[in-house]
Amino acid sequence: MIGTAPTAVPVLAARGRLRPLGLGEVRITGGFWAERQSVNAAATLGHIQHWLEREGWIRNFDLAAGQGDLPGERRGREFSDSEVYKFLEAMAWEIGRTDDAGLESRFRAVVRRVADAQEPDGYLNTKFGRPGQEPRWSDLEWGHELYCIGHLLQAAVARARTRPDADDGLLAVARRAADNVCATFGPDGIDGVCGHPEIETALAEFARVTGDDRYLAQAALFVDRRGHGRLRDVEWGREYFQDDIPVREATVLRGHAVRANYLSAGAVDIAVDTDDAGLLAAVRRQWRNTVARRTYVTGGQGSRHQDEAFGDDWVLPPDRAYSETCAGIGSVMLAWRLLLAHGDPGYADLIERTLFNVVSTSPSADGRSFFYTNTLHRRELGTVPDADRASLRAAASLRAPWFEVSCCPTNVARTMASLAAYVATADDDGLQLHQYLTGTVEHRLADGRDLCVTVATDYPHDGHVRVRVDSDDDRPWSLSLRVPGWAVEGATLTVDGTTRPVGPGVVTERRTWRRGDEVVLFLPMAPRFTYPDARIDAVRGCVAVERGPLVLALESVDVPDVETVDELRVDTGQPPRLVDGRVLVRCRRVRPQDHDWPYRTGGAESAPGAGEELDEVAMVEYHAWANRGPSTMRVWLPTT
Amino acid sequence: MIGTAPTAVPVLAARGRLRPLGLGEVRITGGFWAERQSVNAAATLGHIQHWLEREGWIRNFDLAAGQGDLPGERRGREFSDSEVYKFLEAMAWEIGRTDDAGLESRFRAVVRRVADAQEPDGYLNTKFGRPGQEPRWSDLEWGHELYCIGHLLQAAVARARTRPDADDGLLAVARRAADNVCATFGPDGIDGVCGHPEIETALAEFARVTGDDRYLAQAALFVDRRGHGRLRDVEWGREYFQDDIPVREATVLRGHAVRANYLSAGAVDIAVDTDDAGLLAAVRRQWRNTVARRTYVTGGQGSRHQDEAFGDDWVLPPDRAYSETCAGIGSVMLAWRLLLAHGDPGYADLIERTLFNVVSTSPSADGRSFFYTNTLHRRELGTVPDADRASLRAAASLRAPWFEVSCCPTNVARTMASLAAYVATADDDGLQLHQYLTGTVEHRLADGRDLCVTVATDYPHDGHVRVRVDSDDDRPWSLSLRVPGWAVEGATLTVDGTTRPVGPGVVTERRTWRRGDEVVLFLPMAPRFTYPDARIDAVRGCVAVERGPLVLALESVDVPDVETVDELRVDTGQPPRLVDGRVLVRCRRVRPQDHDWPYRTGGAESAPGAGEELDEVAMVEYHAWANRGPSTMRVWLPTT
Repeated sequence: MIGTAPTAVPVLAARGRLRPLGLGEVRITGGFWAERQSVNAAATLGHIQHWLEREGWIRNFDLAAGQGDLPGERRGREFSDSEVYKFLEAMAWEIGRTDDAGLESRFRAVVRRVADAQEPDGYLNTKFGRPGQEPRWSDLEWGHELYCIGHLLQAAVARARTRPDADDGLLAVARRAADNVCATFGPDGIDGVCGHPEIETALAEFARVTGDDRYLAQAALFVDRRGHGRLRDVEWGREYFQDDIPVREATVLRGHAVRANYLSAGAVDIAVDTDDAGLLAAVRRQWRNTVARRTYVTGGQGSRHQDEAFGDDWVLPPDRAYSETCAGIGSVMLAWRLLLAHGDPGYADLIERTLFNVVSTSPSADGRSFFYTNTLHRRELGTVPDADRASLRAAASLRAPWFEVSCCPTNVARTMASLAAYVATADDDGLQLHQYLTGTVEHRLADGRDLCVTVATDYPHDGHVRVRVDSDDDRPWSLSLRVPGWAVEGATLTVDGTTRPVGPGVVTERRTWRRGDEVVLFLPMAPRFTYPDARIDAVRGCVAVERGPLVLALESVDVPDVETVDELRVDTGQPPRLVDGRVLVRCRRVRPQDHDWPYRTGGAESAPGAGEELDEVAMVEYHAWANRGPSTMRVWLPTT
Repeated sequence: MIGTAPTAVPVLAARGRLRPLGLGEVRITGGFWAERQSVNAAATLGHIQHWLEREGWIRNFDLAAGQGDLPGERRGREFSDSEVYKFLEAMAWEIGRTDDAGLESRFRAVVRRVADAQEPDGYLNTKFGRPGQEPRWSDLEWGHELYCIGHLLQAAVARARTRPDADDGLLAVARRAADNVCATFGPDGIDGVCGHPEIETALAEFARVTGDDRYLAQAALFVDRRGHGRLRDVEWGREYFQDDIPVREATVLRGHAVRANYLSAGAVDIAVDTDDAGLLAAVRRQWRNTVARRTYVTGGQGSRHQDEAFGDDWVLPPDRAYSETCAGIGSVMLAWRLLLAHGDPGYADLIERTLFNVVSTSPSADGRSFFYTNTLHRRELGTVPDADRASLRAAASLRAPWFEVSCCPTNVARTMASLAAYVATADDDGLQLHQYLTGTVEHRLADGRDLCVTVATDYPHDGHVRVRVDSDDDRPWSLSLRVPGWAVEGATLTVDGTTRPVGPGVVTERRTWRRGDEVVLFLPMAPRFTYPDARIDAVRGCVAVERGPLVLALESVDVPDVETVDELRVDTGQPPRLVDGRVLVRCRRVRPQDHDWPYRTGGAESAPGAGEELDEVAMVEYHAWANRGPSTMRVWLPTT
């Protein structure tokens, strides 16, 4: 322990089936995620600060504090303040995690520049309200003022939970901003909502951290107001910002995928803390339908480029799949809240899938470039983005160092730094492990008993998860382990020398544990073919290959003499094989004949013929693709 | 003949393999297209004028002429002037076609209002350049000033070719505007191009109609300038407005599909009139690759909503297929120019397909509402757009009366009114019929001989096309008929009592024709299954059904007890049947089971099972779908 409060968690609900364990209780000490966290700390945080300074997004606060010409010199889009706040949040978690003194000093310096820009009544935004700027709150649809304040509050929450006694002043800045929001948008104030939800979950958390229920009431008011057409209609319809249907009445997530997830996360926070079973059930229903019909095999959400939005049910094209990194993060936020509320393992299943295949796909191996969108199919080689320029295009063919809309890098950074908080929970009877990684989990139960387990595993590259008890207690307690939904058969649990088969769900061992007792969960890690629901038109006749929680991809750099993986057809007659840590599939290569017109009449399908057999082809873990230069790539593979 | 000049055609090239026949030579007297033209005249033109007045887009010219507060009261987007010009063009063709006195008077009234707004130096635009407005030419990327002038010139060309002696002043207005463009953008002027191509083809035609080659030179200059990054980069890249690659070097159409086609049409005009074989070959190559890899089975082009753009090769999702009506019209414009230049029947094949399945799909049966985009798959019932409101959304689920961007209604109107000009051509030796409809074709050959044929047919609902010679001449001449590419087998030609099989391409009969001689082309009209190239991922495992040039669709209103056609699987073991004029296919209905997660591991595909057999289901001609209220619809049908 390094002085981080046990409640150093992003979500601390008033009630719920499970209680979260935070950075003070869960340590990630090795393996896949430890490496990610270390790259995040060593490279990504500095990279972000470099770009925030370079693009002038932190300097905007200096201008707002009077050190320059604000309307004239301000740079960045209307939501650029939020990137500074997400960077603060990421640093707060990282300081909580590692106690890095250098980072602490950088954190404080940025907080001071932010604080100096706050207006006397608490309003804080560098884009609106000062002489020469548009008036405050004059563009609720697109202005993102409340959205930005939301991220400010989340940064303050992270700081307060990791350094409760810090004297940096961030919490006070946030409180004044939150008070300004309540005064402006309260029951007697502006009858509006923000075009981009975020303030809802932030105010709910801020109420939790401050103990002041006014903020929760304001959050609830925002949620209740939404869905009645208070925002102006836009080209893509009011569903774009979920102002088409009240939250309590909607049946599925729709519109902009980040907005939809952030709003739902806030609705869960409010439902839980106000004991509003109807609201909670509504979000749960929306989540279930969204996962069943509108989610990519990677866990990614949102299929449309135009409005960064969910498509209709079953519209999940791998081509130009949007699957925005931030939507994946929003989905983790929502599923985590529902997991705490209900305890169902399906929520943790989606979190696992999304962390491995969306959130960890975004950053490059060196942590200095990012996918904004996470397509499941790249047809053309593409080009390396200019490392010295913010990318204009969300559809960059490789990871880019920065974007004009650069929400994803800071979102990845804050998620990576707080990842330990999504691993395990507790209830009055014991511990629940939801994600498997090498590390330790310590927790004091409500009755005062101290529990500790150590997890050792090479997961997701090996299926053995060894959980050793490192505490001693005379009374029994429960250790619960999640068996992922994909582990349909072959999973086993070994306790006290006895091995038994277990199936998807939660397996709980309640006993009087002694120091040194070991439980081994074995998950079947043989690669497997995965078939889509027949209603997903875009991948009819295709299979994906998965291994454990990892989605795999065919990348052209792994196939000699083949430039486009679209020429490959996978032979499902032979299961994928694991050889020397690589997954191999047997493929044929087809080269369809070109015709003047690509549609053919006649009795026979214009099948490309049997093609030539290739050696087995090695697949790449999807999250790791595009780290070896331009390439073509497919997740969904046509079969022979 | 009603006084229309024989050269009343939209395209009059200086040279080429074929010479166009126009409204003075081709009369459409009955059948599918005559009905469309009559709805266009009786309903659509009035509907357009109503909305142009109602939205204030004509009044903008009154404001510009000083009768109001221009910046303050101006309404509509930056390109709204062009809709007024396309309306003028449509009226000009319609007056040429029917000599409607009431329309003539409405035409002149609108011309006067336009003329009054022209500035002394010839500049004409209601959005730029006057006090309080942005300066002229200050936004070449998005301002559409040259685009608008292009449509003004096309209106003047239509008028000059149908009423060469008219004293309405439109030609003079256009000439002053064109002179202003040449003075402003000439070799020593602004080194720029318009974000939306259109001025190129318009200037080339204007050179043809005025005999002044300065306009052709300016058009050529615009084409040569494009492709070198003169326009600012935008989020979707410079390929959006074809400023990424010079026209001579490009290999395929890309970016915004309307822009790409308009630019290519202009390039052909210039190539032909300046005898530039390299430029012509470049466009021809682009067309060939675009048709082979980037065109929907309907002939529609452009698959992306975000930027109204072509996708990569083979990216042709039926879901939310954009297939903008105006892109279809642009494609017809381009293919027609290439047909005149080269004579290859493939160009006429695409024109036929696009006219029947895109251009005629846009307007409703009553001619008062329109599809802006023409999707090939509607999953949800959708709602009826407000008949009293301009639609915000291109993705309206049914045809809408008007749009905030309302390019398609006026584009359809001008195309329908000038349709006769796309039917037949001549060369020194005779006539070529490219499209089949009931009507007459008259033409005086260069050597002075008058030829006349009368065509009688119920095409596309019957395959017999009877061509009767109605002129007498002692010397032989050639009558050429196109056998469409889809008529792979079964087509016959009967001449002088002798029937012989003919295949796709052009069949030419050269003989001394006598009045009363008859040629009967028979085209096989049995409905047929059509299979996609294996590289079009989005329709793998599906078939379309076509009949002659018509693409068919399954529409839910034709399937009792089925709300979504997505539940249907077509049995390709039984060919589609024609019964009482309707095409029937045998289907099974499947109802896949719902699961929490739509991807399944295991040896078996998650096939929905055999399903229940339905009676044969009737299909609808795609162009006629969505005329019976909200429905779901598919063109590409999964097979059993």
